[in-house]
This record gives sequence, C-alpha cells and structure tokens, in this order.
Amino acid sequence: MNEFDYIKKYFRPLTGEISRDLKDDAAVFKQNKGKDLIISTDTLVEGIHFFGNEDPLVIAKKSLRVNLSDMASMGAKPIFYNLSLSIPKNKVKSFIPKFSKGLKEDQEKYKIELIGGDLTNSPSHINITITIFGETKTGKSISRKSSQNGDLLYVSGILGLSNIGLINFNNKSSSFNIAKNRYLLPQPRVELGLILNPLVNSMIDISDGLVQDATHLAVSSGLSIELDLKNIPIPNIKKINHNELLDSALYGGDDYELLFSCSPINENKIKKISKNLNLKITKIGVFSNYVDKYLIFKNSKKIPKDNSYLHF
Amino acid sequence: MNEFDYIKKYFRPLTGEISRDLKDDAAVFKQNKGKDLIISTDTLVEGIHFFGNEDPLVIAKKSLRVNLSDMASMGAKPIFYNLSLSIPKNKVKSFIPKFSKGLKEDQEKYKIELIGGDLTNSPSHINITITIFGETKTGKSISRKSSQNGDLLYVSGILGLSNIGLINFNNKSSSFNIAKNRYLLPQPRVELGLILNPLVNSMIDISDGLVQDATHLAVSSGLSIELDLKNIPIPNIKKINHNELLDSALYGGDDYELLFSCSPINENKIKKISKNLNLKITKIGVFSNYVDKYLIFKNSKKIPKDNSYLHF
Repeated sequence: MNEFDYIKKYFRPLTGEISRDLKDDAAVFKQNKGKDLIISTDTLVEGIHFFGNEDPLVIAKKSLRVNLSDMASMGAKPIFYNLSLSIPKNKVKSFIPKFSKGLKEDQEKYKIELIGGDLTNSPSHINITITIFGETKTGKSISRKSSQNGDLLYVSGILGLSNIGLINFNNKSSSFNIAKNRYLLPQPRVELGLILNPLVNSMIDISDGLVQDATHLAVSSGLSIELDLKNIPIPNIKKINHNELLDSALYGGDDYELLFSCSPINENKIKKISKNLNLKITKIGVFSNYVDKYLIFKNSKKIPKDNSYLHF
Repeated sequence: MNEFDYIKKYFRPLTGEISRDLKDDAAVFKQNKGKDLIISTDTLVEGIHFFGNEDPLVIAKKSLRVNLSDMASMGAKPIFYNLSLSIPKNKVKSFIPKFSKGLKEDQEKYKIELIGGDLTNSPSHINITITIFGETKTGKSISRKSSQNGDLLYVSGILGLSNIGLINFNNKSSSFNIAKNRYLLPQPRVELGLILNPLVNSMIDISDGLVQDATHLAVSSGLSIELDLKNIPIPNIKKINHNELLDSALYGGDDYELLFSCSPINENKIKKISKNLNLKITKIGVFSNYVDKYLIFKNSKKIPKDNSYLHF
C-alpha cells in the first residue's frame, strides 16, 4: 500500500462534505454570517510529547485532545480538524490502522470530523500536527486578557496528575494508574468551556503548568494574581508527599484543565455548574492591581521550585 | 532565548489582527457571508522534501509556496496561514531568524499573514507544517472532478525543471542554475489561478508529476485524457537528451504548475491570458469518454518509464 491507499482506506472514512472526499487540493468551508471561526494548532513529536511505544489509538486521541482543549479555553464549539502525519516507512503498517481508529472514536465522542491534511514519510520519528477549528458567535470567544481587578480565579479538576503519571510511568504500583492514564489521555473540558463562555472574563487551558499559565492570564490582563496555595486541588496519592504533589500541580504540564477568571457575582453559578457536570471547580486565587509581581503565593512557607517545561 | 522569546521576536511581527498577537490559545477569524474558506495543509520534512543545508530563508519560502500552489489550483485568493515548526535545539539559533525573514518576504509578495501555530523541539530533523487559508465566493472554488468530454487540457510554464534541478543539484555547471533554482523556489501560479477561476472546468497543481496529476484529473472526472507527448513543454537544457527531459516533465515532482481543463470555446481567452501574464500556457491534451485507460499517450514511440514519487 502506498500513501494514497492508506489515505483512501483509513482517513477518507473520517471525513465529511467539507473535505471533498480528500480528492481536491483543499477543503472547502462555507462561511456563516454572525460566526467566528476559531483556529488553533498543536504538534506532538515522538520522543518529546509522547514516548512512541504507546498504543497508536491512544496517541491519536491525545493529539486530538490537546487541540480540543484549546477550543475549550476559547469557549468555542469544535467542528472539524485537519491532520499532518509524518511517519517512518517501517512504522506505517502497524501505526496507521490503530491511529485512525483512535481518531474515529474521538471524532464520535466530540462530534468533529476530519477535513484534510498531509501524509508524508519521515526519516526517523513520528510528527503529528493537528489544526483544529471551532465556532463561536461573532466576538464571543474568550481571550486571556480581559480579567478584571477583583475577579476570582478558578480551575477545573485536579492539577499535577499528568506530571505524576509521566514521572512514574514505569512504576508498576497501581497507585499511579489514574495518573498514568491522565498523562496518556487528557480530558479536554470542551463542554465546560461552552457553558462558561458567557460567564468568564478570561480563560486558558493549563498545558504548561499552573504557574506558567496563570502568569499568562495575569500578564495579558495587566493584573496580579494572588494564588492561594492552600486551595490548589492536588491529587490524593499516598506514595507521594504533599510538597511533591504541590510541585506537580504548580509546574507540571499536560493537565489540560481550564483556568479562568470571573466576577465574584458568578460564584453561585460556578458552584451549580460544578455540581451539574460532576466536576470539581476550585477557587484558587484573586486578581488585583499589578504592583511589582504578576503572581503572588499566599499560604506558602517556601516558594516551590520552578521546573516549568521549556522546549528550548 | 526560550520558545516564547523566539515567538515574540521572530513570529509575532508576521501576524495581524486574526492572530490576537499570538497571545491567546487560538486565532479568531470573522466569517463572511457569501464566501467559502479554502483550507489546505502541506508538510515539508528535512531529508525528504529538502536537504537541510539550504538557506533557511529559501526553506521558508518553499514551505509557503507549495501551500500557495494549492490555493492557486483551487482558484482561491490566499489570505493567511498558520505554521508548526519542530526543530532540534541546536539548530534554533541559526535557523529561525533567517526562516522568519523568508516568511516575511513572501508574506509581502503574496499578501498573506501568519495567524498562529506551534513551535516545538524535535529530536532529530526539522518538520514544517503549514495550513493555508484562501477565499472564493461561495461555491466558486475549482475542483478536480468537473472536466467535460471534449475539454482541452492545458498546463502553465515548463515541466520537469525542478526534477532536473534536484537530480543535478551538486553539478557545478551553470546550465543547471535555472533548474536548481526552480527546485529550491517554486513559483506558485496564484495570480493565474484567480484569473482562470471563471474559465476552467477543473484544475490541479502539479506536485507529483504530470502523469500522476493528470491521472487524478481524469479519474476524478471519470474521463480519459489523450496526452500529446509532442506538445509537453520541456526545458531547453543542452546537457540532457530529449528523452530524459521528457521523463522529468512527465514524472518529476515539485513543478507546481497549473494543469487545467476548459472548453475549446475559451481557447482564445487562454491565449490572451498567457500573453498578458507573459507566461507560457500550452495545450497538451484532450478529454474524451473513458473506455479502458485514464491516460493515453499520443505521439509516443515508447511509453516513458514511470518513476513517480511515492512516500511509502
């Protein structure tokens, strides 16, 4: 089978009308009056973002989900995506069938479709780039920059799990199963992002660790955030001490939870949303006027060590 | 400098309003009534699509231009693009400044802007994925499938140059300069694609060789193409015999010329366009009802050897 055969057998079944059956040089999307198209790209590189020996089905889902998380943080409804896959010849046969199955399962879960892309050879490792597209009403997507003085800072879910899963990936103890699974399979908060859209002032998904992403919110809005370290939602894993758990929550990447600001008048609405979705949403800080630091740690005896991930 | 510094210094200056200054998790594009958005993705991999020791400025332009060529073949006006660059740490410093300069020059030439993307580390080679976006009026993009029985087949420019440039890349003779330059720097026929839009029935850009791409047109339209081998526009390079030149024209990749079908009633209009743009446009075949072959070679003593490029 050559690349055309693989595209026909494994990728064309994932497409709909916009893709033109992958038979033209581009996809064609009819624009809608009163709507914004929200566009984001994330790349996953073998050896950097994933090990390479994971089930390709899981790699496919992770690739989609990190992108879906960007739609969640914009408060946008994901609608379609395109995919570029560069893969060494000797991996094609074992990888693509399982990979396309993973895409199919998550397409159904998140109600999105493939519209096109590129499939090429690679001299060594696998490289997966997905561009995802979502929609909001015109002007109704959420940015990072509109937090107000006095806003509350909230975060969804539990922080640090994914980082702990990564660090302990080869540990056989079942205590790490939930964490390892979260590292492999993020849970993008797409539904939450849509529900929060009319309530929040700014929002971001935590991909680089709470401290780094909270700083993005603070800097973008020109405000300070007082972060209450007592309230950070950390996992309950007995084999790891509190300080290490907190470090992972503050600096570990790949959480893909939503971090958002909203006015205190919405506090009860947020509680109700948390209850309805059966999803923990925790108030972890307050925005105030910027003086000399974007991020202030409250209830902290020592400033936890910074091990934020940087590519370069 | 970390990746955020590189993005701020080298990529943010390439962006406009849609990008939100690269400060949010996604770009935001306001949709327009009565317009289609045309979307295409092409990846260039070091060691597969480029050597790696070219000037990064040239690699940037090639990356954009192969994508622009897809807009040309759809008869669409390119408007913006996003970029994912995966690059080994030790190449960042020498590569990114020149690469972004190449993007800048071609952005100005083709009147497009960057809207976002991803910048990541790579364990070995460089991987560049660009998704390009263009516009047409609703329903007015060109597909591969609407050729009619009796249509003429035309091609722009000269075929095979890029392949000859690649094969002779290390040959010092100045006879190969034009060919080598064409391999490095494709000339996407964006303006021609826009002018042809109302006249043609189907169109494709030649990226995989004339034979392969003409076959795509024939198969998509369910017709045969009789290809007149006497009329194929081949380069004039004295060091290479006619048969080799014809092989490159038929099977060599990376030409990025436009191959299109139109009714014979447009013959004079096509001649006038060719003259106005000072660009060779050659009639090389005729469409007829499919009997048993999609492609029929006319004026050919032997069927040239097939060395079409396949990734797998």
